[in-house]
Amino acid sequence: MHLQLKPFRNAARSRCSRAAPARGPAAGLLFFPVAVAAASSSSPSSSLSSRPSSSLVQLRRWSRRKTIGCVASSSSARSETPSSSSGASAAAASTSAMAEARVTAVATIKVTAGGFLNSLRPSRAIDDIKDLIGRSLYLELVSSHLDAKTGREKPTLRSYAHKVADNDADVVTYEADFDLPPGFGEVGAVLVTNEHHTEMFLEDVSLYTNSDSGSDSDSDSGSDDARAAPLLAIRCRSWVEPKSSDAAGDGKRVFFANKPYLPGQTPPGLRSYRSKDLEEKRGDGRGERKPSDRIYDYATYNDLGDPDSDAAKARPVLGGSAQFPYPRRCRTGRPMSAKDPSTETRSGDNYVPRDEAFSEVKNLQFSVTTLRSVLHAAVPAVQSTLIDPNLAFPSFFVIDKLFEDGVELPKADQLGFLRSVVPRLLQLLRDGPGDQVLLFDRPANVQKDKFAWLRDEEFARETLAGMNPYAIELVREFPLKSKLDPAVYGQAESAITAEVLERQMGRVMTVAEAVSQKRLFMLDYHDLFLPYVHRIRAQAHTTMYGSRTIFFLCNDGTLRLLAIELTRPASPTQPQWRRVFTSSTDTTESWLWRMAKSHVRAHDSGHHELISHWLRTHCAVEPYIIAANRQLSEMHPVYQLLHPHFRYTMRINALARSALINAGGIIELSFSPQRYAIELSSVAYDKLWRFDTEALPADLVRRGMAVEDPAAEHGLRLTIPDYPFANDGLLVWDAIKGWVTAYVARFYPDASTLAGDAELQAFWTDVRTVGHGDKKDAPGWPALDSPDSLAHALTTIIWVASAHHAAVNFGQYDFAGYFPNRPSIARTNMPVEEPVDATALAAFLDNPDQALRECFPSQVQATLVMAVLDLLSTHSPDEEYLGGMETAPWNDDATVQDAYGKFNARLKEIEGIMDERNKDRRLKNRCGAGILPYQLMKPFSQPGVTGMGIPNSTSI
Amino acid sequence: MHLQLKPFRNAARSRCSRAAPARGPAAGLLFFPVAVAAASSSSPSSSLSSRPSSSLVQLRRWSRRKTIGCVASSSSARSETPSSSSGASAAAASTSAMAEARVTAVATIKVTAGGFLNSLRPSRAIDDIKDLIGRSLYLELVSSHLDAKTGREKPTLRSYAHKVADNDADVVTYEADFDLPPGFGEVGAVLVTNEHHTEMFLEDVSLYTNSDSGSDSDSDSGSDDARAAPLLAIRCRSWVEPKSSDAAGDGKRVFFANKPYLPGQTPPGLRSYRSKDLEEKRGDGRGERKPSDRIYDYATYNDLGDPDSDAAKARPVLGGSAQFPYPRRCRTGRPMSAKDPSTETRSGDNYVPRDEAFSEVKNLQFSVTTLRSVLHAAVPAVQSTLIDPNLAFPSFFVIDKLFEDGVELPKADQLGFLRSVVPRLLQLLRDGPGDQVLLFDRPANVQKDKFAWLRDEEFARETLAGMNPYAIELVREFPLKSKLDPAVYGQAESAITAEVLERQMGRVMTVAEAVSQKRLFMLDYHDLFLPYVHRIRAQAHTTMYGSRTIFFLCNDGTLRLLAIELTRPASPTQPQWRRVFTSSTDTTESWLWRMAKSHVRAHDSGHHELISHWLRTHCAVEPYIIAANRQLSEMHPVYQLLHPHFRYTMRINALARSALINAGGIIELSFSPQRYAIELSSVAYDKLWRFDTEALPADLVRRGMAVEDPAAEHGLRLTIPDYPFANDGLLVWDAIKGWVTAYVARFYPDASTLAGDAELQAFWTDVRTVGHGDKKDAPGWPALDSPDSLAHALTTIIWVASAHHAAVNFGQYDFAGYFPNRPSIARTNMPVEEPVDATALAAFLDNPDQALRECFPSQVQATLVMAVLDLLSTHSPDEEYLGGMETAPWNDDATVQDAYGKFNARLKEIEGIMDERNKDRRLKNRCGAGILPYQLMKPFSQPGVTGMGIPNSTSI
Repeated sequence: MHLQLKPFRNAARSRCSRAAPARGPAAGLLFFPVAVAAASSSSPSSSLSSRPSSSLVQLRRWSRRKTIGCVASSSSARSETPSSSSGASAAAASTSAMAEARVTAVATIKVTAGGFLNSLRPSRAIDDIKDLIGRSLYLELVSSHLDAKTGREKPTLRSYAHKVADNDADVVTYEADFDLPPGFGEVGAVLVTNEHHTEMFLEDVSLYTNSDSGSDSDSDSGSDDARAAPLLAIRCRSWVEPKSSDAAGDGKRVFFANKPYLPGQTPPGLRSYRSKDLEEKRGDGRGERKPSDRIYDYATYNDLGDPDSDAAKARPVLGGSAQFPYPRRCRTGRPMSAKDPSTETRSGDNYVPRDEAFSEVKNLQFSVTTLRSVLHAAVPAVQSTLIDPNLAFPSFFVIDKLFEDGVELPKADQLGFLRSVVPRLLQLLRDGPGDQVLLFDRPANVQKDKFAWLRDEEFARETLAGMNPYAIELVREFPLKSKLDPAVYGQAESAITAEVLERQMGRVMTVAEAVSQKRLFMLDYHDLFLPYVHRIRAQAHTTMYGSRTIFFLCNDGTLRLLAIELTRPASPTQPQWRRVFTSSTDTTESWLWRMAKSHVRAHDSGHHELISHWLRTHCAVEPYIIAANRQLSEMHPVYQLLHPHFRYTMRINALARSALINAGGIIELSFSPQRYAIELSSVAYDKLWRFDTEALPADLVRRGMAVEDPAAEHGLRLTIPDYPFANDGLLVWDAIKGWVTAYVARFYPDASTLAGDAELQAFWTDVRTVGHGDKKDAPGWPALDSPDSLAHALTTIIWVASAHHAAVNFGQYDFAGYFPNRPSIARTNMPVEEPVDATALAAFLDNPDQALRECFPSQVQATLVMAVLDLLSTHSPDEEYLGGMETAPWNDDATVQDAYGKFNARLKEIEGIMDERNKDRRLKNRCGAGILPYQLMKPFSQPGVTGMGIPNSTSI
Repeated sequence: MHLQLKPFRNAARSRCSRAAPARGPAAGLLFFPVAVAAASSSSPSSSLSSRPSSSLVQLRRWSRRKTIGCVASSSSARSETPSSSSGASAAAASTSAMAEARVTAVATIKVTAGGFLNSLRPSRAIDDIKDLIGRSLYLELVSSHLDAKTGREKPTLRSYAHKVADNDADVVTYEADFDLPPGFGEVGAVLVTNEHHTEMFLEDVSLYTNSDSGSDSDSDSGSDDARAAPLLAIRCRSWVEPKSSDAAGDGKRVFFANKPYLPGQTPPGLRSYRSKDLEEKRGDGRGERKPSDRIYDYATYNDLGDPDSDAAKARPVLGGSAQFPYPRRCRTGRPMSAKDPSTETRSGDNYVPRDEAFSEVKNLQFSVTTLRSVLHAAVPAVQSTLIDPNLAFPSFFVIDKLFEDGVELPKADQLGFLRSVVPRLLQLLRDGPGDQVLLFDRPANVQKDKFAWLRDEEFARETLAGMNPYAIELVREFPLKSKLDPAVYGQAESAITAEVLERQMGRVMTVAEAVSQKRLFMLDYHDLFLPYVHRIRAQAHTTMYGSRTIFFLCNDGTLRLLAIELTRPASPTQPQWRRVFTSSTDTTESWLWRMAKSHVRAHDSGHHELISHWLRTHCAVEPYIIAANRQLSEMHPVYQLLHPHFRYTMRINALARSALINAGGIIELSFSPQRYAIELSSVAYDKLWRFDTEALPADLVRRGMAVEDPAAEHGLRLTIPDYPFANDGLLVWDAIKGWVTAYVARFYPDASTLAGDAELQAFWTDVRTVGHGDKKDAPGWPALDSPDSLAHALTTIIWVASAHHAAVNFGQYDFAGYFPNRPSIARTNMPVEEPVDATALAAFLDNPDQALRECFPSQVQATLVMAVLDLLSTHSPDEEYLGGMETAPWNDDATVQDAYGKFNARLKEIEGIMDERNKDRRLKNRCGAGILPYQLMKPFSQPGVTGMGIPNSTSI
C-alpha cells in the first residue's frame, strides 16, 4: 500500500517531513491536510494557478492515495494499520497465484522543461501522431521466475501504452493492458522502450488489476479513483532514451521491482537482466560519451589544462602517477590534445551519466543551473572587462557598501554576467533607473558583530566552530619540526620559541606543561605549502609563505591565539626568511600581527576549499559513485542505501572541472596558489588522505582532538571539550552509524553473507584499486569482511558525502562572504620581509589600512568569490536532507522502515540538542555576545542561505 | 623703520612667517616676492580681481614699504642693516628737538563688513557728506611733557582729518596737518574723536614731516611714495565709537605711542591719560553693558540657567560660593531673573568689550562667525525637528557614510541650520539635485587606520598622544582607594586586585614591583564622577559610573591596557554594584570589555571637554584678561606681552555661555552628565585647580608623570620616556619661558622694580582675589616678588592660553570626529549590571554591535558634536601663531626684538625636532603603522583642520 505514496511525493517531496513531523500514528494521520497544502503551494508547476480545474482533479486523486501512503510510510504508523508490510508481497504473490488475469500498467512520465513533451521541439508533431496511434511507449512485463519446464527465462508480456492524461499537467500517464497467463508468476521487472524521438523521464510504472479500465478510457473521468491499490509499483525515476538513439542495442530499459536482493538472492527470472544492466552501465571503456549515455567509467583528471588554447594553460595530469596521485573522475572519452597527448581536450559541458544530471524540474529561479551560468560566464566576463582585475578595494567603506547600499557596477555591460545570472544580487540604483548596483546579502556574522573579523578570539573560535573545523590539531611535541629536507628548505625547527609562547600565555605555565596538558594547538600550513612558495611567488599578484599558528586552550575552554610564524624557504637566489608574529601593544607590531593573520586566513581558505571541501568530499566521493553504479545492481540493498547520497555529485564535479578547478578557472583566479591550487590538492591527497580517517572519530583522533575512551559518549573524549563541530558532528555520525548498522544487519546476517556478495566485493575492489587506485596500497582500507566493517565503511561514505560536506560548505557565505574575515588570497608580502622593500614598508607605515586592502583579494577576485560562495551556501527548494522522509527507503521492508524512522526521529532530536547547546553560555565557543550559533550540523533547513541543514549528498 | 610693516601685515598677516621662514638676512630679503604673492592671493577683499588697477597701485605702494619692513622685523636682519633700532627713537626725539614744524597725521581706517563705510548702513549718506566737508574725524596730538612753566599738561594740538583714499580699497586713509609749536616736545599719544554716526576700526595713526602733502592731494598720485619714514607710528587696532554714542564722556579715545612704560616711568604728560583710560575700562560696576562698551568687569557664572523660560533650565550659580567655586566671567549687567533673583536673564549675544569681539575682517567663509551660527541654530533646530533625538545609528555603515558618501538629511527642512551655516559639510546628492547629504571630512585617524578605535593599544596610546593627555597619572599606591566617604559611596578600596592585574600583565612582575618601578598608570574617573552617578542616572537616555582604568608600561615604552573597573555607588534604593572588566578570549567578555572601554571613553570625553579644555583654558584665562585690562595700562609692558594671548577668548567664552555650556546647550545635550556637566567642572575646579600646577612641569609632577631632576633636559625626568605631549610640550614651555624671562628681565632689573609696580601688583591681586577669588586662599599662588616668579607666572598664563589649549583643542576632530573612538556620551548601562535587565542582556548577546551603537551618542548628538568639533579644530586663515612674526612686539626695543626673534627661531627649530621625533620608530607612542604623528605641539600651521599649530590665544 505504501507504494501509492509516489504521486504525492512527486509533488511535494521536499516538504513532507518538514511540514509536520510524524512521530506517531495520530500525527501521521493528522498531517495529511498539511501535506496537501504543501503540495499545492510548492508544486514545481509554475502554471498551476492558470489551470485550476484539471489540477484540482489531479490533486484530489492524489490526495486519496496519499492518505494511505503517508500513513504507510510512517514506520511506527504502519505497525498499527491493518495493511501490514506484507501487503505488497501478498499482492505480488497474488499475481503469481492467480489464473489468467487482466492487468493494466500505468506509466507516469514527468513533464520537463527541456525534455519530453517540450512543445518547442521540432519532433513534437511526430510524437503527437505516434501518441495518437498509440505507438509511443512499449512496455514488457518480466517474470521473476524461470520457465519451470525449460529452466529458461519466460517470454515477456508486451504491450503498447496509450496516453491517457492531459498534456498540460505535470505528469502524463500512459496505460497498457496485459493478460497475465496462468503461472506467469510474480512480475519482477518491466522493460520500457521509448518509441518517441525524444528522451522521457519515467517516474514510475504501476500494475493494477483491470477491473474497469480500458485502453480507450479517459483517466480524467474518475475511473482511476475507483482503482484499488496497485499490485506492484516500480519507482523508475530515470531518463529513458529513444529507441532510435540506441543503435547498438535493442533500446530496452529494465526497471526492477524495488525489492532489494543480494546478488545470490536474485529471483532467477531477473538474473540475466541484473547482470546485463550492470554491463551496460560499465560500458566498454571506449569512445566519447554522449549526454544521453548512462555509462559509469573512470578517467584521471587529465582535462583541467587546456594546452590547445594557451600553452600557459597546460596542467599536469592528476591521478595515475606517483607524483600526482588523485581520485578518479568519470570518463568522458573526449579526444586527446594535439599539443599534449596526456591531456584530454575540453569541449562543452563535461559528460555525466544521464541520470546524474540535475533534475530539470528543479526550481529554475534558484538552482545549480544558476551556479553553472555564473561559473561559465564569470571568468570570460572578468577577462574581457576593462576593470583592472588586480585593483584593490579603495576603502573598507566600499567593501561594506557591497552589503549595504550596493556598489555601482563600473562597467555594467562587461559585468553583464552578473546582471543576467545573479539577478538577486543586483538592484536598481535608487535614482538612476539605467544603472545597476551589485548588492550582496549581509553575511550572518557581520549582522551580529561587524568587527568580529578583527578579533583574535574569533580567529581562534572559527577553527572550532567555523567553516573549516578540519584543520586544527594538537601540538604533540615541542619545538615544532618540519619533516621537509633542511638542506632544501632550511632549518626544520620552528622559530616559535617557548619564551615567545610563554610570554603570550601570560606565563601561566611552561610550554612543556602546556604540551603535556594538551593545551597547545596549531594550524600547520608549513610543510604543505613550503615546497610551493617560490613557484607560487613566481606568479604575479600573489605570494605565499609556510605558516604555523599556535593556540593555547584557556581554562574557560576558549582558545587564545598565541603566535604566527611565516616562513619563506631558501631558494637559489634568496636565503630563508622567517619571523614569528604576536599581538602587541606596539601599534606597528599590532598591524603586522593583523597582516600575518590575513596570510594565515588565506592559507586556511586554500586548505579549506582545496582540501577539506573539494578533495575530501566532492573529489573523493566520485569514485564511490562510479564504482557503485558499475558494480552494484540497482536491486542491491547497498546501492539503494547509498543512492540518495550520490545525488548531483557527479554533475557538480563535472561543472567544477569545467569552470572552477580548471586552468584559469575561478579557484586559480582567486586563491593564493593560483595555477598550483589543484596540484596542491593532489599533494594533500598524497600526504594526508586515508579512507579510514575520513570517518569523523578517526579524523579527530588523528588530529589529536580526541582520544578513544569507551566510557565516553561516542567512545571518544575530546581534547577541547567545547569543540562545536566535533560535538555536533559526533551526534550526526552516530545517528548515521545507527541507521546503517541496522540496515546492514537486515541484509547481512553474518560475515559469510558479505564474503559471498560478489557485487559488493567488486564494488569495494573498484573503489580501492581503481577509483582510489593511486592509494590502493595505502593503509586505511578496511576489508568488508563483517557486517560491522561494512557498516563502518558505508557510514564513512555517507558521512563524507553529507555531514562532512555540509560542515565545510553551508557556512561559506556566513564566514567568508565578508571576505576580510576569510580572504581567499594574500597578494602582498609582509612589509618586513627581508630584503625589506623600503617603499612598501613606508607605504605600510603610512597607511596600513590600505596595505591590508592591497594584500586582500582584488575587487574582481573578492566579488567573484562572494558570488560563488553565496550560491554554494544556498539550499535549493528541492534539497533532500539527511534522514528526511522524502528519501525514506522505497522498499517495503519493515525492519528497514523502522530503522529509518528511528534515524529520522533521532536527527530531529539532535536538532533540539544543538539548539540547547547554542543557548548554553558555558559553551563559550558557540554561545556568547554576537557569536553565530553553531548550526552547520543541524540536519534540516529551509531553502536559501541558512547556515544549517545537511543534505544527503554533496550536491552543490 | 619697521613701523612700515603695517600695510603689508594687514593684507597678509597670517602668511608672512609661513611662506618663507626668514632665518637670516639673505632669507629675509628673499622672501619679499613670495610675500607679495601670498598677499594678493590671500587678500580678504573678495572683489580684488574686479578692481585690478587701483589694487595694483595699492599693492605696489605697499610693496616698497614691505621691502624695508620685513627686513626690519627680522631681528637678525636688523642688526646688520644700517637703520638700527635707534631710528624710530631718533625720529621721535626729533619732534621734540625741532622748532615749529608742520606734520601730517595719517589715520588708517579698516573697511569692515559690518561697520564703518558699510554701504548698506542708512547713515552712510550723512557720513559721506561729513567726509566731503572734512568734519568726520578729529585728531589731537598729546605731548609727553608737561608745560615746564605751569607743571601741567600742555594743550593738545587739534585738527580735523580729511579722507584721501578710495573707498573701494581695504583701508581708507585720513590726513590731518598740524603745526607743532616749538617746545611741544615728543608726541606721546593721539586723541581720536569719531564724528561719524558709525563706529570705525582705527588701524593706526602715523605722523610724517610735511614735505609735500596737502589736504587736497590724492594719495594715488604717488605722493605717498615720496614720503619718508614716519616720525611716529601708533598702532591702534581698536574700535572707536561715534562721539554721539558717548553721552557721558567727551567721546575722545586715547592711543599711546607704542613704547612700553612701567607705571613709574610714564612720561609726565601722559600720566593722567594712562590712569583715566584704565578707569574708563574698569567702569563703575553698574548698569547693563552695551555692545559698544569697552568695560572689563567681573561677574559669576549666573547666566547659564534660564529659569524664566523653563523651570527645568534652572542652574546653580557657579562662582562665589563654597559649594560651587568657579572663575569669574565678564560682567554683562543684565537684569536678574524674576523667578530666581540669583540668576541673570539671558538675552541676545552676551556682551564682550568691543575690542574683544571677533575682527570683522576675518574671512567670512570660515570663522568663528560660522561656529556662532551653528551653535545658536543647532539646538533649536534639533529640538524642532521630527527626528527622534534619541535614535541610535542603525548600523556602523551609516556612521561610516557620514564620512564617505554622505548621509541624506532625513528632514532637510528641519535640519536647515546645517544647510545654511555649514555649507562645506553639505553636498548635493549626486542624482537628486533637490536633496542634500551631510558629509564630513574623514578624520585623520580613520584615513590611516579605520579600526584604530577598536584596539586597546590605541586607547592606551591616546592617553599619551591624543587630545586629552592631561588625564593619565601614575599609580602611587596599591590597592587604589577612594577618598570619598565609604558610608555613603561604599567600600573605598578598588575591586581591581593584584591577581587580575598580574594576569593581564602576563605575570612578568608583581603589582608591588610594578608600582615600585612606576609601571602602573591610571585614568581615575572614580571620585570625580561617583557623587553624581545617581543624579545623572535620574535623567533619561544617559547613564554614569565611576571608573578606574589601569595601564602597564611595557618594556618597549608602550602602555598595555589592563583593566577597567566600573562602579555604581550605593543609593537609598540600590546596593553598590561594581565589576572589573578585562580583555578576554571569551567573546562575551570581550564585548563587555569593548562596552566598558566605551564608558571610559565617554568619561574621558567629559573630563576632556569640561575640565582639560573648558575649565583649564577658556574659563580660567578669562579672569587674567579682565584683570589685565582693568589694571594694566596698554602702555604697560606686561599688558603688551600678554595682549596677543588674549585674542578672541572673551568672545568665544561669551559664545560658549550662550549656546554651549548653558542649560540645554550643546554640552548638556551631548555629554553623559547632561544637566550636571558644567556643575562638574566647578567640582573639578574646587578639587583640582591650582595656579601653580597649570604650569606644564608642575602638572606633570603632580600626576607623577615626571620628577624634578636638574640633570635632565627641562629639569624633568619623565616617568614614561615616550610621552609625546610631555616631550613636545616641554620644548614649547621652555621656549615660552625663555622669551618671557628675557622680556621680564628687560623691564624688571630687580625685585624692587616689581614691588614698585602698582599696576602689576593690582593686576595680580585682581587675578587672585577677584577673578579666581574663590581660590584666593588656595595654595599655589606665587607672589610676584622677583623677575623669576613673574616670568614663571606669565609663562604659565601664556602656556595655558596657547599650548595647553592647542593640545586639547586642535586634535578634537582628528580623534573624536569619528565618534566611536571618543563618544561624548554612554547612554546605556552595562548589560551585566545588577539587577540584570534580562531583555537588555539578551539583546546584547544577540547583537552586541547594536547594543554598542545604542550606548553610543544618538544620531543627533553625534552629528551635532562632530559639526562643532570640526569647527573648533579649524584654524582660521587669520590665525596668529605662538612666536609668529605677525605678533612680534610692536615696540622698538632692541632687547625685546632680539629675544622675540630668538623665540621665533627656536619655535621653528622645535618644529623640526618634532618632525624628527615623529619619524623615529623607537618612539612607538608616536611613530608606527597608521599612527597619527603627534603634531599638536607643532607651533605653526596652515589654515583648516591640520592637527597642528599653536595659536597665541584660546581663540576658538
